[in-house]
Amino acid sequence: MMQIPMLLSSFITRAETHFPHKKIVSRTSPDIIHRLTYADFADRTRRLANVLDGLGVERGMKVGSFAWNHHRHLELYFAVPSVGAVLHMINIRLSPEHIIHIVNHAEDEVLFVDDNLFSIIEPLIPELKTVRHIVIMSDDSVIPNANFESMHDYETVLANASSEYEFPTDIDENSAAGMCYTSATTGMPKGVVYSHRGLYLHSFASGLVDSFGISERDVVMPVVPMFHVNAWGLPFTSVLFGSSQVLPGPNFTPELLIDLIESEGVTFTAGVPTVWLSVLKEQEEKPRDLSSLDRVFVGGSASPRGLIKAYQDLGVKYISIYGMTETSPVVSVSRYTSEVENYSEEEKIDLRATQGIPIPGVQTKIVNEHGHVPWDGETMGELMLRGPWITDEYYKDARSEEAFEDGWLRTGDIAVYTKEGYIKIMDRVGDLIKSGGEWISSVDLENALMSLEGVYEAAVVAVPHPKWQERPIASVVLKDGYEANEETKQRLYDGLRERFASWWMPDEILFMDELPKTSVGKFLKAELRKIVFDQVGMKQ
Amino acid sequence: MMQIPMLLSSFITRAETHFPHKKIVSRTSPDIIHRLTYADFADRTRRLANVLDGLGVERGMKVGSFAWNHHRHLELYFAVPSVGAVLHMINIRLSPEHIIHIVNHAEDEVLFVDDNLFSIIEPLIPELKTVRHIVIMSDDSVIPNANFESMHDYETVLANASSEYEFPTDIDENSAAGMCYTSATTGMPKGVVYSHRGLYLHSFASGLVDSFGISERDVVMPVVPMFHVNAWGLPFTSVLFGSSQVLPGPNFTPELLIDLIESEGVTFTAGVPTVWLSVLKEQEEKPRDLSSLDRVFVGGSASPRGLIKAYQDLGVKYISIYGMTETSPVVSVSRYTSEVENYSEEEKIDLRATQGIPIPGVQTKIVNEHGHVPWDGETMGELMLRGPWITDEYYKDARSEEAFEDGWLRTGDIAVYTKEGYIKIMDRVGDLIKSGGEWISSVDLENALMSLEGVYEAAVVAVPHPKWQERPIASVVLKDGYEANEETKQRLYDGLRERFASWWMPDEILFMDELPKTSVGKFLKAELRKIVFDQVGMKQ
Repeated sequence: MMQIPMLLSSFITRAETHFPHKKIVSRTSPDIIHRLTYADFADRTRRLANVLDGLGVERGMKVGSFAWNHHRHLELYFAVPSVGAVLHMINIRLSPEHIIHIVNHAEDEVLFVDDNLFSIIEPLIPELKTVRHIVIMSDDSVIPNANFESMHDYETVLANASSEYEFPTDIDENSAAGMCYTSATTGMPKGVVYSHRGLYLHSFASGLVDSFGISERDVVMPVVPMFHVNAWGLPFTSVLFGSSQVLPGPNFTPELLIDLIESEGVTFTAGVPTVWLSVLKEQEEKPRDLSSLDRVFVGGSASPRGLIKAYQDLGVKYISIYGMTETSPVVSVSRYTSEVENYSEEEKIDLRATQGIPIPGVQTKIVNEHGHVPWDGETMGELMLRGPWITDEYYKDARSEEAFEDGWLRTGDIAVYTKEGYIKIMDRVGDLIKSGGEWISSVDLENALMSLEGVYEAAVVAVPHPKWQERPIASVVLKDGYEANEETKQRLYDGLRERFASWWMPDEILFMDELPKTSVGKFLKAELRKIVFDQVGMKQ
Repeated sequence: MMQIPMLLSSFITRAETHFPHKKIVSRTSPDIIHRLTYADFADRTRRLANVLDGLGVERGMKVGSFAWNHHRHLELYFAVPSVGAVLHMINIRLSPEHIIHIVNHAEDEVLFVDDNLFSIIEPLIPELKTVRHIVIMSDDSVIPNANFESMHDYETVLANASSEYEFPTDIDENSAAGMCYTSATTGMPKGVVYSHRGLYLHSFASGLVDSFGISERDVVMPVVPMFHVNAWGLPFTSVLFGSSQVLPGPNFTPELLIDLIESEGVTFTAGVPTVWLSVLKEQEEKPRDLSSLDRVFVGGSASPRGLIKAYQDLGVKYISIYGMTETSPVVSVSRYTSEVENYSEEEKIDLRATQGIPIPGVQTKIVNEHGHVPWDGETMGELMLRGPWITDEYYKDARSEEAFEDGWLRTGDIAVYTKEGYIKIMDRVGDLIKSGGEWISSVDLENALMSLEGVYEAAVVAVPHPKWQERPIASVVLKDGYEANEETKQRLYDGLRERFASWWMPDEILFMDELPKTSVGKFLKAELRKIVFDQVGMKQ
């Protein structure tokens, strides 16, 4: 057979050759919506490739993006890997400390930043050791006044570049195409590097009928951010299949998402449960025509049954998926198998809430100290993964060692197989808090609190939250001589704010005389949770 | 990302892990139907792997199969490549001379032969220079009396083998998994070698929504033979996705196929147009419940519009595909794109009759002496192909040289792009008729004739002409109940005149009882030309 490397540039060629007139709808600010064709996209991506060459971007070099979901970010998704460089998508919600760390750790040499996000990056510039150029992405081509030598405007450099560019075909398919850092449970974020081969195969596998089932006829709106885990691969998959794309841009509201579904005829969308909760609320208050919408894929945290049912009642398939930063990300999808097609509606909704069946290409196993767990819906074990789009290491990180076992990735998730073979996540191996689809590490918060003046001990547990799924509550024992009052509380919040993003802030800081512990001095979190629930007036 | 080779054995693991109870229905003789699960299939395939080891089959060695579509053939499809050897599927319809040639050319060391086909192989045994063992596949475990030392019975050796077998994972994904010889129209058949990588990717790509769209929920019946071009990859794809399979076995009739569709709830089937013509005839005579059948994929030769329409009227999608032995085989599929969804039914049927849009992973171009042809439905050129499941040579064959150009496979097919970008095959390079400096497409004339009332089959060939260089002659087989007379002939001419310019009119319409065809049902034009020359009184 012909030796043809699996490169992302081949997706551009396919879209421009076979679907030149298909649409990309891109919202870049509250009142600006761009409409491009795949022919435009290919032209602009080739210009961008020339721009990258002009900025001295070489093979293997890291190029950072700090941006919302829009067409310029899509162009970066393709131009950067297609010239042989690596797109480092930076999570805009990380703390300043973490952003500085990952830009330096990845050694980003060029940063592409949305104008409306530049205020986050600007104060960090003196700390970014490897960045040589910053390119601002905006609609007005105004370069902000900042104390940095090489600032460029995206549209100006594109306009000045040639649209002739032959994407190289001698790139090794195993070489890096992209990278993303996890919101780590402890310590600094860990980097994951995606290869051309992995993303190519992920695009084919996640598009299959029993996965996302994406067709050229679909209009795909990724609500999941392009600044994290490849936006679940949807930008790649959509270009490969020639599907129309709707990119909702910055600070979107539920109302805006519904607007776009209605006006653009969106058939497919994807995001975390909190988004779909708020969209549902909006739709219930002001019903609109969502008849084009066929299916919503949901991941990041578990979906409540009521939410799934509400969407099914609207005629929209609400399908859970499972994945991680480490897995490109799609691992499994809660599609109905032939076995369950005749189940009752209630039983079917239960299965929609599970993490589903692994998609072709991924191997899964759930193991505990007795070996593989049976399909009984009860026996728990740790979920382990293997596959061509599963990472085999963290980028230049000693923590890689504990994350793998015999060539399998340890997910740190405790799961069961239902009797139909669906994966169902039960818990974290550790004690993570899932808020709005993102992880909050209780251990990180505890360590930070305990480093503040006057704090003797601190423990953080999750309480359920109707919108964010879970929110952290901190319990603090003060040292002698410190007063448990509002002033102290605000001082502790101030201390946390210096280290963490605002959404990491505990909803409450409770002062206690002591914390329940095991005989060897570890926090008894189950016990603490009861006390906390009591104090905040919840039933467990 | 993890370095995991793309091996066919991973499909077995997936099916037995996630879909152990799914069904394989296998007809091995007129009155025997086997029912196995994927758990049974995996167990038997492991036993077969041990049998191959026992017969001294080593990596890279060729193992021939001479068999119909049934579960034992399916086990060979997986066990042989999974131990690192190469399955040479031998077309049972080849001439004895060609069979001898390809077995010797491939250097097959073991042959697996259906008991009901052994009478074809037996007289050839003295000529087969490399074959060391013959394994007979039958239901009664009787080994025929033949003058050959090492004869075995399939079920006996399987029963005696262990079901424990760890498929090796250190096989290079680029190594050979299977091979097949083209039914060449001139000279000896040419061999094509399929790699694990090619077949793995072909399985993912051909299963996509805009290709075959195969789901676990499908019940797949490949009517296209497993002794040719991987049965269009369907055995691999079905195992990968965990779809149920119905394998119709030897000498099936239209009635049997309808029986199986009805009783097994077949949703998906595939084969050449002549099969679907005869199934339609049967269904029209004795209507049955075909409501489970969702779609029929058809290739090998062009389908008449009337046939497509008749299936659509039955509620079955009738979708053309294009492929060759050289291409694993799926290249393009005539699915409707979003652009044509609002076309009239008549326009849509026209597109169903084309070869469609290339599936993801394949690159196509149509070129003539002026370069790439425009999307105008008129400008003809040769179709050229590139992709990871397109061959880059013929096996040990000097004819490889003329078949490729700058890394592209020359298909030898003359095609146009419709204005929607669908590939439409107009003719073979050699079959295009050059009349008075203009091209006449024999395929266009054939399709038009076959859409006229009373026409069962039609083929058009060129005869030399002193003034016009070449002129078309049509050969027509009428349906039962239609008379081969002057009146009919005039009616056919009238029908053609409505669609074509006068200079496209065949100089003669000959009525025949049957048309010469290749082993896979394509018109044998060289043969037909001789017959036509005979009838019109010419010498070739």
